[in-house]
Amino acid sequence: MKQLVDDYPTRKSAVPSLLERKDPVVYQKTLNQSEIGTSELEFYEQNGFLFLQSFFDEDEVARFKSETKRLLTEAHGSTRPEVILEPESEEVRSIFAVHRDDAFFQQLASSPRLLAVAKQILDGEVYVHQSRINFKPGFTGKEFYWHSDFETWHAEDGMPRMRALSCSIALEDNTYYNGSLMVIPGSHQWFVSCVGETPEDHYKESLRRQQYGVPDQESLTKLVNESRIEMPIGKAGSVLFFDCNVMHGSSANISPYPRSNAFFVYNSVENKLQEPFSSSKPRPQYIAARS
Amino acid sequence: MKQLVDDYPTRKSAVPSLLERKDPVVYQKTLNQSEIGTSELEFYEQNGFLFLQSFFDEDEVARFKSETKRLLTEAHGSTRPEVILEPESEEVRSIFAVHRDDAFFQQLASSPRLLAVAKQILDGEVYVHQSRINFKPGFTGKEFYWHSDFETWHAEDGMPRMRALSCSIALEDNTYYNGSLMVIPGSHQWFVSCVGETPEDHYKESLRRQQYGVPDQESLTKLVNESRIEMPIGKAGSVLFFDCNVMHGSSANISPYPRSNAFFVYNSVENKLQEPFSSSKPRPQYIAARS
Repeated sequence: MKQLVDDYPTRKSAVPSLLERKDPVVYQKTLNQSEIGTSELEFYEQNGFLFLQSFFDEDEVARFKSETKRLLTEAHGSTRPEVILEPESEEVRSIFAVHRDDAFFQQLASSPRLLAVAKQILDGEVYVHQSRINFKPGFTGKEFYWHSDFETWHAEDGMPRMRALSCSIALEDNTYYNGSLMVIPGSHQWFVSCVGETPEDHYKESLRRQQYGVPDQESLTKLVNESRIEMPIGKAGSVLFFDCNVMHGSSANISPYPRSNAFFVYNSVENKLQEPFSSSKPRPQYIAARS
Repeated sequence: MKQLVDDYPTRKSAVPSLLERKDPVVYQKTLNQSEIGTSELEFYEQNGFLFLQSFFDEDEVARFKSETKRLLTEAHGSTRPEVILEPESEEVRSIFAVHRDDAFFQQLASSPRLLAVAKQILDGEVYVHQSRINFKPGFTGKEFYWHSDFETWHAEDGMPRMRALSCSIALEDNTYYNGSLMVIPGSHQWFVSCVGETPEDHYKESLRRQQYGVPDQESLTKLVNESRIEMPIGKAGSVLFFDCNVMHGSSANISPYPRSNAFFVYNSVENKLQEPFSSSKPRPQYIAARS
């Protein structure tokens, strides 16, 4: 089942490289929904992300928050693998597979409004490749270094093409001060091939702290110098859609304000997972749905 | 020589507390210079800081940068105690006592324009209590957690009153993305008494990573909730003056852009150091000038 040709080789060489993207960004340019218009679709294609202020209203956000609070309470002290802790404390950093394990978030992941945008961009049917709630607690939330999600999904999960996107729903206000996501606009057009091999069961550590699949400083500098860094910020209820290959990261959060978000990855049904491209065995289903 | 009364007890109790400030903020309200006006002085008094865009012009900044580059080159690989490294790498984080050891920065610290502002606020003669160049390298610059400088200077250096201020000269553009300083406006009116005792020679570790004199989360939350967080940003050459007791901190810097600054602390000659208030012996002269 392993592909003969790997268009996005990574973790196979001792030197990093910048490769051109070989896949479309927007797969369906004819509008077939009313959530976003042509100019927003063009913005997404050019920049690799689209930030929609107040996509969900206050009542919806209040419900999201109470359901998230319930989830967090249930997760405290849990030893389920789906519950990931902060590297230097026992605080919950993420809960995975909420679209599978929790009725409320299953329904949210299937929201027709979110699906409409995902299907427009990816063209046709999609499924949830990964879901999680990220809790970036106040004071102690650690940084996520720069990365392309696709690099990991390709290397460790066997995702063949760049035909997936992420959707991050802000459960708290995102500000310049609480570790909001930063993106490098346009970076989705380049694949940063990373050095080194993936160690077995790398995911157990990498969800807490990234060590492999880390882009090199020279490539990052090039990407930023040709563009810029942007930090889309807004009220709770805002939604950020971003391409699977756009370079993004976030700083630590030393403010008292948590920065939680619900995170769904939609993948095209035409882009089903194969054998991992740079890892001996695929990651578990709660991180990367294979069925 | 040890004072009988300690108006700002810290690191002496097992529980933190918030104490009211017992000292003025602006010691001389009658204008005696032309660098800042009455409204700026009032802003400083109310908020505990004052950010002056383009205080130094482009030519001056270019000179500052080349002199800083020279200093950094000289410091690489040095084992002088004045050279402090990043906690997780061999990169230089700070160089102390540049006003003492380096002719160029000695002159900069004595700039009549900087001194005019310091003398206005502190009323009368001042001297340099501490100086340093901070290098916050791109990609790897680590965070500085929230702290009041005065808490440390009082506990470890024996600074009796809140009659000192810091002046941070931006040597690079400060943005929302490269770990710029954050302040809690108004927090200078409260002293956060911290828990725990100061271990011997704490400074050797604390300059790399703070562990004692750390304000508690409850006090920080109160200070922020009664006010806000601000991040004064601007071009290289901007200057931030801030009160010795204002709560401040900064996030990590994962951007490719370094964020260096030259940092001078002016203390009133009426406020000379005594025995440390919460430590067995004073820190070395290169961290806190005693003569």
